[in-house]
Amino acid sequence: MTCHDFNKYKTWLFDLDGTLVDSSYAHRLAYHETLNNRTRQIISDFRYDDYKGWSTEEVFISLGFRDYTLETMIKIKQEYYRKYVTLGKISIFPGATELLETLVNTGRTVSIVTGSSRASATLALDYLGIRPMITDLVTTDDVKQGKPAPDLYRYALSKRITQPVVAVEDSLAGVYAAQNAQLPVVHVHYDSFLPGTIPIDSFDSIIEVL
Amino acid sequence: MTCHDFNKYKTWLFDLDGTLVDSSYAHRLAYHETLNNRTRQIISDFRYDDYKGWSTEEVFISLGFRDYTLETMIKIKQEYYRKYVTLGKISIFPGATELLETLVNTGRTVSIVTGSSRASATLALDYLGIRPMITDLVTTDDVKQGKPAPDLYRYALSKRITQPVVAVEDSLAGVYAAQNAQLPVVHVHYDSFLPGTIPIDSFDSIIEVL
Repeated sequence: MTCHDFNKYKTWLFDLDGTLVDSSYAHRLAYHETLNNRTRQIISDFRYDDYKGWSTEEVFISLGFRDYTLETMIKIKQEYYRKYVTLGKISIFPGATELLETLVNTGRTVSIVTGSSRASATLALDYLGIRPMITDLVTTDDVKQGKPAPDLYRYALSKRITQPVVAVEDSLAGVYAAQNAQLPVVHVHYDSFLPGTIPIDSFDSIIEVL
Repeated sequence: MTCHDFNKYKTWLFDLDGTLVDSSYAHRLAYHETLNNRTRQIISDFRYDDYKGWSTEEVFISLGFRDYTLETMIKIKQEYYRKYVTLGKISIFPGATELLETLVNTGRTVSIVTGSSRASATLALDYLGIRPMITDLVTTDDVKQGKPAPDLYRYALSKRITQPVVAVEDSLAGVYAAQNAQLPVVHVHYDSFLPGTIPIDSFDSIIEVL
């Protein structure tokens, strides 16, 4: 039971990772595997004799330490994460599917606003079976700056949507992004209370009052 | 004994690493230590929870994977190398000191043309005790492109020096750099014969004929 009037919100913008989908384990694995394997590969491929006479700068550039490394790391990490999604290493949070169903069945619009890539988000939505309930999907592919910048939420709000709007977020960066876009924020799966947010114990507490 | 007329050369441009100084071990150690420690440090410092809600790109940028990484790697590798120099992990090749002394004592000019940094080269010259015999020191700090580009040799040749000039090199990149600057090249410490070079067995074979 909660005292907040959740009924008034017509458009619900949900963050994905950490909010609807429990993907921390898969993301953590993907980052560690990328950092470990990519750098181990660089080290194991390295033969000093191939670079005799070269300047140190040219050796490291040749090994990929410049923009190239960043792009490669991103690509490899995303591939690892998507592999873990298909291997079933993510799950939907308790009550999330039911909340989305209740919202859609009571005439609300449900959209996703995520700092993830479009490919990763789509894969997760399909895997979790919640894609049919989603009206719009805003991802990091659509804007320049991810969360905590308000760009993702501003982009979602720039479309024709029904007011009032509420955001649902779990992370510090996500809450700031929504607040920076002047949105009320339902805060879920948090360890400590973030000022100005609407904290809830579980998705069920929202379903009860709709 | 050699059939080449080494006596005619008035200016001798010596490469440093692999030619006068046996520094492969120290350079190899420094690269491996940099690649291992730097990347291990990134991995051990990484806590996924600190980046929740962030885009993958912003996580890797924050971890230093962009231009920053290149600069850091170069700096750390140079520091490791200089540490190994002071720890005595480099040595001068047999006959090198004697050849430099003979050249200087017979009125030749001896200079260094190296793809190393000025700080590392100076440290090595001091450690090996050959700095007093060196007239000029051209390093990667002086030009944009290292070897095999001819820039280092062209820069050395742009100064007022007495012709004829000869280069002394060990590596493929070094030989190409000198040849690209239209210089005859004495090739030392090689595994296979490089076309167009003057191969020698040892520095002693030059000393004998001077």
